[in-house]
Amino acid sequence: MLAEKISFSRVEEDSLGQKTIMNNAYYGIHSLRAKENFTVSGYKLHPELIKALAIVKKAAALANMKAGTLEHSKALAIARAADEIINGKWHEYFIGEAIQGGAGTAINMNANEVIANRALEILGYKPGTYDKINPVDDVNYGQSTNDVIPTAIRIAAIRLLQRYVEANLLLARTLREKAEEYKDAIKLGRTHLQDAVPLKIGDELKAWAEAIQRDARRGEMAINLLAEVNLGGTAIGTGLNAHPHYREIVIEELRAASGIPQLRRAANLIDATQNLDVMVEVAGLLRAGAITLTKIANDLRLLASGPMAGLAEIELPPLAAGSSIMAGKVNPIIPEVVNQVCFKVFGNDLTINLAAAAGQLELNVMQPVLAFALFESLGMLSEAINSLALKAVKGMKFRLERCENYVNSALSLVTPLVPYIGYQAATRVAKQALASGKSIIDIVRELKLLPEEQARELLDSRHMLTN
Amino acid sequence: MLAEKISFSRVEEDSLGQKTIMNNAYYGIHSLRAKENFTVSGYKLHPELIKALAIVKKAAALANMKAGTLEHSKALAIARAADEIINGKWHEYFIGEAIQGGAGTAINMNANEVIANRALEILGYKPGTYDKINPVDDVNYGQSTNDVIPTAIRIAAIRLLQRYVEANLLLARTLREKAEEYKDAIKLGRTHLQDAVPLKIGDELKAWAEAIQRDARRGEMAINLLAEVNLGGTAIGTGLNAHPHYREIVIEELRAASGIPQLRRAANLIDATQNLDVMVEVAGLLRAGAITLTKIANDLRLLASGPMAGLAEIELPPLAAGSSIMAGKVNPIIPEVVNQVCFKVFGNDLTINLAAAAGQLELNVMQPVLAFALFESLGMLSEAINSLALKAVKGMKFRLERCENYVNSALSLVTPLVPYIGYQAATRVAKQALASGKSIIDIVRELKLLPEEQARELLDSRHMLTN
Amino acid sequence: MLAEKISFSRVEEDSLGQKTIMNNAYYGIHSLRAKENFTVSGYKLHPELIKALAIVKKAAALANMKAGTLEHSKALAIARAADEIINGKWHEYFIGEAIQGGAGTAINMNANEVIANRALEILGYKPGTYDKINPVDDVNYGQSTNDVIPTAIRIAAIRLLQRYVEANLLLARTLREKAEEYKDAIKLGRTHLQDAVPLKIGDELKAWAEAIQRDARRGEMAINLLAEVNLGGTAIGTGLNAHPHYREIVIEELRAASGIPQLRRAANLIDATQNLDVMVEVAGLLRAGAITLTKIANDLRLLASGPMAGLAEIELPPLAAGSSIMAGKVNPIIPEVVNQVCFKVFGNDLTINLAAAAGQLELNVMQPVLAFALFESLGMLSEAINSLALKAVKGMKFRLERCENYVNSALSLVTPLVPYIGYQAATRVAKQALASGKSIIDIVRELKLLPEEQARELLDSRHMLTN
Amino acid sequence: MLAEKISFSRVEEDSLGQKTIMNNAYYGIHSLRAKENFTVSGYKLHPELIKALAIVKKAAALANMKAGTLEHSKALAIARAADEIINGKWHEYFIGEAIQGGAGTAINMNANEVIANRALEILGYKPGTYDKINPVDDVNYGQSTNDVIPTAIRIAAIRLLQRYVEANLLLARTLREKAEEYKDAIKLGRTHLQDAVPLKIGDELKAWAEAIQRDARRGEMAINLLAEVNLGGTAIGTGLNAHPHYREIVIEELRAASGIPQLRRAANLIDATQNLDVMVEVAGLLRAGAITLTKIANDLRLLASGPMAGLAEIELPPLAAGSSIMAGKVNPIIPEVVNQVCFKVFGNDLTINLAAAAGQLELNVMQPVLAFALFESLGMLSEAINSLALKAVKGMKFRLERCENYVNSALSLVTPLVPYIGYQAATRVAKQALASGKSIIDIVRELKLLPEEQARELLDSRHMLTN
Repeated sequence: MLAEKISFSRVEEDSLGQKTIMNNAYYGIHSLRAKENFTVSGYKLHPELIKALAIVKKAAALANMKAGTLEHSKALAIARAADEIINGKWHEYFIGEAIQGGAGTAINMNANEVIANRALEILGYKPGTYDKINPVDDVNYGQSTNDVIPTAIRIAAIRLLQRYVEANLLLARTLREKAEEYKDAIKLGRTHLQDAVPLKIGDELKAWAEAIQRDARRGEMAINLLAEVNLGGTAIGTGLNAHPHYREIVIEELRAASGIPQLRRAANLIDATQNLDVMVEVAGLLRAGAITLTKIANDLRLLASGPMAGLAEIELPPLAAGSSIMAGKVNPIIPEVVNQVCFKVFGNDLTINLAAAAGQLELNVMQPVLAFALFESLGMLSEAINSLALKAVKGMKFRLERCENYVNSALSLVTPLVPYIGYQAATRVAKQALASGKSIIDIVRELKLLPEEQARELLDSRHMLTN
Repeated sequence: MLAEKISFSRVEEDSLGQKTIMNNAYYGIHSLRAKENFTVSGYKLHPELIKALAIVKKAAALANMKAGTLEHSKALAIARAADEIINGKWHEYFIGEAIQGGAGTAINMNANEVIANRALEILGYKPGTYDKINPVDDVNYGQSTNDVIPTAIRIAAIRLLQRYVEANLLLARTLREKAEEYKDAIKLGRTHLQDAVPLKIGDELKAWAEAIQRDARRGEMAINLLAEVNLGGTAIGTGLNAHPHYREIVIEELRAASGIPQLRRAANLIDATQNLDVMVEVAGLLRAGAITLTKIANDLRLLASGPMAGLAEIELPPLAAGSSIMAGKVNPIIPEVVNQVCFKVFGNDLTINLAAAAGQLELNVMQPVLAFALFESLGMLSEAINSLALKAVKGMKFRLERCENYVNSALSLVTPLVPYIGYQAATRVAKQALASGKSIIDIVRELKLLPEEQARELLDSRHMLTN
Repeated sequence: MLAEKISFSRVEEDSLGQKTIMNNAYYGIHSLRAKENFTVSGYKLHPELIKALAIVKKAAALANMKAGTLEHSKALAIARAADEIINGKWHEYFIGEAIQGGAGTAINMNANEVIANRALEILGYKPGTYDKINPVDDVNYGQSTNDVIPTAIRIAAIRLLQRYVEANLLLARTLREKAEEYKDAIKLGRTHLQDAVPLKIGDELKAWAEAIQRDARRGEMAINLLAEVNLGGTAIGTGLNAHPHYREIVIEELRAASGIPQLRRAANLIDATQNLDVMVEVAGLLRAGAITLTKIANDLRLLASGPMAGLAEIELPPLAAGSSIMAGKVNPIIPEVVNQVCFKVFGNDLTINLAAAAGQLELNVMQPVLAFALFESLGMLSEAINSLALKAVKGMKFRLERCENYVNSALSLVTPLVPYIGYQAATRVAKQALASGKSIIDIVRELKLLPEEQARELLDSRHMLTN
Repeated sequence: MLAEKISFSRVEEDSLGQKTIMNNAYYGIHSLRAKENFTVSGYKLHPELIKALAIVKKAAALANMKAGTLEHSKALAIARAADEIINGKWHEYFIGEAIQGGAGTAINMNANEVIANRALEILGYKPGTYDKINPVDDVNYGQSTNDVIPTAIRIAAIRLLQRYVEANLLLARTLREKAEEYKDAIKLGRTHLQDAVPLKIGDELKAWAEAIQRDARRGEMAINLLAEVNLGGTAIGTGLNAHPHYREIVIEELRAASGIPQLRRAANLIDATQNLDVMVEVAGLLRAGAITLTKIANDLRLLASGPMAGLAEIELPPLAAGSSIMAGKVNPIIPEVVNQVCFKVFGNDLTINLAAAAGQLELNVMQPVLAFALFESLGMLSEAINSLALKAVKGMKFRLERCENYVNSALSLVTPLVPYIGYQAATRVAKQALASGKSIIDIVRELKLLPEEQARELLDSRHMLTN
C-alpha cells in the first residue's frame, strides 16, 4: 500500500520541509502551502486573473528565450502550457484562495508550478521533474511576484473593463431607443420632488443616456490607466535579475500574448511597484458609474411607484410576483437589484481605497484583496447594467395620460410669466390658484396681469420645452 | 523703543530655541510653535475640548495636592485658573488648530501654559514666571499628553452627547404628539414604493418615535462607553511618574470637576492608551442615528412631494421661497438639510474609523482629527434633530382626504381575502380590478368567491389595522 | 418523447404565465423566475440563511397548527421537511442568487416551494400537487416576506456570531498564554514610532488580549440586538392575515426551533419592519473588532520587521517562502491576510450602512445585499481571528536580547528624572546623551543633577513598570 | 424711538410675510430667512464660493444686457457690484450657513440681494428700492438656482484646484531636489517590511516625486472636468425663461469674468442639471492624491522611527517638543498631520459620494454639503502638501551610515545569486548565514557554489541598482 501511494504521488520540498502531492496534480508544494495557510474567504481566484497570469508567464518565457536566458524548448513548452490556461484549461489547479497574505507570492508560485508541471508533461516528463523545468528558476526567470502580480491584475481588470464598456454602451443605446419611442411626449419635471416645469420624455431619457455614455468613456479611460504595467521591475522596481534585453522586449510580448495594444511599461518602475494610487483612480471611475446607476434606478422606482397611490408615470415589465402575501403586487425588482449592486460597489471602493493606502516602503502587499474587490465590482456592475437595459428599460412603458395630467395641473407653470409680470406677482398667482382651486389662466385673467392671448401662449406647456 | 518692546513682551525658551511672546498672553512658547507648525485646517479647538482640558487639569492639580506632590498654593491657583476656563474664559489663548500632529501634545501644552500663566497672575506673579508655577513640572505633574488628551476628548464628547440625547428626546416627543393628533386617521402603507396595506397615521408616527427613542438610548450608551478614561496611565499606560496615591484619587477628582458621575478608570491602562476601538463603537452608535434620520427625512420628502404631481400626503411648514425662478414653489428644506448633515456624519464616521485604525504600538497619534470629526458630528446631529422637530414635524399637516383616497383605491386591499380564497384567486381579483377599473368588491361578487357580507367586512380597511 | 418529457417534468403557473419544472426538483415557478431574473453576483444563498428560513417556516407551521389555521398533518409534514433542511439537506434547491431585488420575496418563495414539495413527498404526493400543500397558502400562512426574511437573516447572523465570539475567545486566550510565557521580559514602548518608556512584554500582550476580549463581548451584544425579531408583523408590521394566537406563540416556537433563547418579539412591529438601524449598530460592533485586529496585525508586522534592517523584536512562525525571487525571505503572511480581511469588513460595513439608509416608508427592500455583506464579514472575521491565533500568535517568539538592547539604549529613559530635576533639565540630559553618545547616567553625573545612587535607581528600567 | 428705528431699517416682504432689515445691510429678506432656517453647522460660505457667485452674476448681467433683456445701466451697476465682491468686499453680507436645504436657493438669493442692494447704492438709491433694481427680476434674470449654484461651485473649485496643483508641483520639486542631494547614496529596500534588495536613496525619492507629479496632473484633469457648466439651463436644463441670445453668449462672459479659459457649456443641460457623477470623478482624483500622501507620510514616519529603537534612516527637522513627560522626545508631527488630513479627505470623499448619489429626477438638491466637503478637502490638502514640502521634506536628512549598514547586513543580498546557483541553493545560503551569523560570501565560499570573484561581484550592492 505504501508502494501504491508512492506511485500515485510525489514528494516536493521547500525550505520549510516536504509535502506529498498527487502525481496528476499540476500544482506543487508552494501552492499547497497557500491552500493550507489561507482559509479566510473561501473565494477562488478569478478566472480572468488565472488567464492573465498565464499571459504574463507566456510573455516572460518568450522574452527570456529571445534574450537568451531560457532555452528554446523550455520556453516553447512554457508558452504552450500557458496558452492552454489562457484557453480555460487547468484552472482547477489554482488552489489558493483569492484573498492571501504575501502580496500574491503564492499566487505567482501556483502559476509557476502549474505551468512548469504542464510544460514538463508536454515535453514528456512527469510532473515534479523540476530539474528539467523549474517553476522558479525557469518559469519565474527574471520575474518577481512584485511585477508579475500587479501586471496580471491589470490585464485581468482590462478584460473585465471591456465587458463593462459594452454593457454601458448597450444601456445607453437602449435608453436612446426608448427616448425615440417617446420623443415628443411631455411630462412634468420635478426638483426637490416638488412640481417643476415640463420637459419631453425623450429629453429626460436622452439625458440618462448621455450620463451612461460618460461611463462607457470612463471605462475606456480606466483601461488606458491600467495599461501601464511594471513587468520588468522584478522585486522593487530596480529590475534586479532581469536581463536588459528581456526588459526591453517583454512588454511587446505581453501585448502580443494579451491582445491588448495599449499595454506599456511604467515610466518609473520603483514608483509603479510601490504605489497603487492608479487603482484608486480606476475605482473612482467605476464609482462614478455607480452614482449614475443609483440615480437612474431610484428614478425608475419613483416613477413606477403606485400603481394607484404613487407617481405611476411608468410601468416596468413585470418579472415576478411581488409579494408572498399581497396578491397581485408587482415590484421594481431590477432597479432594486441595481441599487444593491451599487451599494456593493461603494463598499468595494472603500476596500480598494484602504488597500491602496496601505503601501509601505517598496511595496503594497495588500493587492490580493484589492484585486478581488475590483473584479467583483466590475463583474457585478456589468451584469447589473445589462439587466437594467434588457429587463427594465427595454420593456418599460410611460403612462402618457397621467404624465400629461401632471403637466396640466402643475402650479409651477406660472414660471414663464415671471419675465413678464415679475416674480412676486407670479408667486401671488400660484398661491391664489392653489388656494382657490382655479386654473392659472383664470387667476391671470381675474387679476388682469396680461392680455389673455399672451397669457395663453406663455402658459402652453409645449412652449416651455426650450432646450 | 527696544526697552518698550521688552516691557510689553517676554521671551520664552524651549529645547529648540527662543520665542518672544506678548506679556498679556497666557499661552507660551509651545503653544506658539503649534500655531506655526499646524496650518492645515483653519479650525480652532472646540470650546468643549478646552473646558474638558481645564477639568482634567483641575482634577490632576487637586489630586496631586492631596498626594503631596504639588504645593497647596500652587494647586489651588491652578484649580482656580482652570475653573475660569471651564466657565468660558481665556479660550482665546488656545491658539493651535484643532487638527494637529503630535497626538495633541501641543494642545496639552497650550492648556498647561494658559493655566500656569493665569495661575501665576492669580498669585500675583507675571506670566512667564515659570519658576513659581511651571506649565510642565507643575500643571502637567504626573500626567502625559497620552492620558490627558484622550480623557479630555471623552469628557467633551460626553457633554456634547448629553445635548444629543436631549435632541432625540425632543424629536421623539414631537413625533408622539403628532401621532396623537392623527391617531385614528388612516393611510396606505407602501412597500417597494408600491401600494401595500393600510395603517394608522398615528402608528406610522409612533414607529418613527420608537426609532428615535432608540437613538436617545444609544446616546446614553455612548456616554457610558466614553466614561472609561485612562487618566493616571501617563505615557504608555504604565503610570510612570504619577504618584500612586494620585492615581488612586484622580478619577474621583475628575468626577467632581466634571459633574459626570459615570467617569471611571479603564481596567487596563496600557490597552486604553493604545486602542481606540471604543471611539469607533461610539461613532457606530451615532451613525445608527443618522440612518434613522435619513429614513425619516427621505420619507418626509416623499410624502410631501407634489403639491399636484406627487404623493402629497403631507404639508410641511413653508419656511422660504423654494425657487428663484419657479414662483410659488416651496421645498422641504429642513428634511433636505437633515439629509446633508447625515452625509457629513457618515463621512466623519469614516474619518473616525480610519483614525482609530491607525494606532501603532503604545499609542494612536491620530486623535486630534478623530476628536474633531466626532465633535462636528455630535454638534451637527443635535442641531439637525432639533430643527427637524421644531421646524418640520411640529407644524406638519396630513392631507387626510388624499390619504383616504389612496387607501380606497389600492388593489392590495385584496390581501385580507387571501386566507379565505387563496393567494392565486386573490391575485386574479387584483388583476381584473386593475384591468377593468372596477372595484375589488365588484370583482369578488362577479366571481362569486365569497358571500357579499363577508367580503365587505374583510375589505373594510378599518379591519386591516391589526397591530 | 413528448410523453416522456411530461413524465419527467411538471408545469407550474403564476400570474405571469407557465414554467416547466423537472419533477424531481423541489423548487417551483417562483424560484425559477428568481434564478432567471437575478444574475448579477453569481453568489448563492448562505447555508446559514437557508437553515434559518427553514427554522422560521417550522416555527410558523407549528404555531399555525396550534392556532388552528393549519391542519395537523400539513403542519407536521412542513416541520419535518424544514428539519431536513436545518440538517443540511435540499440546499441545492435554493437556486436564486444571494443579491436580489424584491426584498427577498423570491427567497421566501423558494423556501415555501422547497418545503411544500418536500412535505408533499413526505405525505406521499408528487411535487407540484399544490392543492394538497400549497407553498403560499400553507407554508407561508400568516407570513409575509417582510417578516420572514428579516427574521431569518437575524437568526443566521446570530449563529455566525456565535462562531465569531468563540474565535475572539480563542485569540484572547492565546494572547494571554503568550503573555504568561513572557510575563517578566521587558521591552521598550514606542509612541509616534519613537522610543518611549519600557513595559513588560507580558503587559503588552495582556493589553491586546483585553481589547480582543472586548470584541467577544461585542459579539454577545450583537447577538442580543439581533434577537429582537419582527415575525408576526406580516406585510408592514400590522400583522394583517396572521391569527392572533399564532402571533402570540410563534416566537416561542422560534426559540424552540432555533435553540436561541434570546429571541424575542420587537416592541413595535411597524418600526421593526421599516428600520434597519439595528443592523448598522451590529455592523458597528463588528467594525470595532476589525479596528483592533488591524492594530494588532500592524503591530505584529512592525515588530517582526527585519530580520536585520527592521525592529526585529519578534519572529512569526514561517509558513511559506516569502518571495519568488529573494531567496530565504519570509513574510508575515497571516497578519497581512488579517489586514486584508479587515479592509473587506470595512467595505462591507459601508455596504451595510448604505443599504440600511435606503429604507422607504413601510419597508427597506435592500436587505439581501445587507445580509450578504454581514454574513461575509462574519465568516471572514472569524476565520481570520482563528488564523491569527493559531498560525501567528501561538508560535511567535520574542527576540529578548534585542528587546533589552532597545530598552537600554533609549534616551527617553530620562523620563523618571523629570519629577526630580524638572522637564527642562531632563531634556538637556537627553540631548547631550544623543549628541555625545554617552549614557544618561554619565551625563547626570557630569552635570551633578542628582546623587549617583538615586539616579541609578531612577534609571533602572525595572522600576519604570509601574502599571 | 420707533421713528428712529424706522429710519435705520427697512421692511422687506416675501410670500411668507415681512421682515425688518437694517438699512445698511445689503442682504434682504430671503437671506435673513436662510439664516434663521439653517443652523446646523455654524460654517459660513467659502469665500471662493462667494466670489464665484459674483462672477456668475456679472456674466449673466452682461449677457442679458447684450441680449437686450436687461437695461444697460442696471447691468453695469450689477457688474460693478459683482466686481467688488470678486475683489473681496461685502462678504459679511452673505449670512447663510454653508450647509443648507433648498439646493442653494437661499445662497443664490443672498447673492441676488447683496448685488442688487449694492448696485442700487452705486446708482444712488437706497438698499431695498427693488423697483429700481430687483434681486430676482433683474439680478437673477434668465437664471435659476439650478444653474447658478452648480456653476458657481465649479468655478470656486477650479480656483482651489489651481492652488492644489501648485502645492503638488512644489512638493514634487522639493522631493526631486532632495533626490539630487542623495542621488548616489544607497539604502536597503523593504517589502512586507522585510529586508529586500538595495536601491539608491535618490531613486526612492524620485519615485515619490513621480507619484506626486501624477497628482498635479490629476488636478489639471479635475479642472478640465469641472469646466463644463450648466449655466443657461435654468430650472431643469430646458433653459426656460433664458433668452436664446443670452444662452449663446453667457459662457463667453463667464470665461471673461472668471479668467478661466477652459469653461464651456455642458453638451446636455438636462443631464448636467440632474447628474453629479462628475463631482465624484473629481473627488476620486483628489482621493488618489490622498493615497499617495498617506503612503509618503507613513514611510517618513517609519524611516524616522527611533532614534535608537527604530529604523532611524532619516531625521526630520525638529519642530516642537514631542512630549509633555518624556523629555527630549521629538515626533514626526508634520507627517502625522498629513495623515490626519488624508483621513478627513477620505471622509469628505464619502460625503461627496453620498450627496452625489442622492439626485432625484430633475435635480440633485444635496449640492451645498457636497461643495462644503469638496472645498474643505481642497483647502486642507493644499496646506498639508505645502507643509510636507517645506516643514518636513526640505529639511530632512538621511543617516547614511545606518542606511549602509542595513544594506550590508541584509540576507536578501543572496538574490543576485539566484540566476547562477538557483533559487533553492540561494535559499540555503540565506538560511545558513542567518543561523550561523556568518556573511553570505563566507557561506558561498564554504559551499563552493560559485568562484569567489564572481560571487564577490554579484554580491556588490552597487551592482544591484539596475533600474
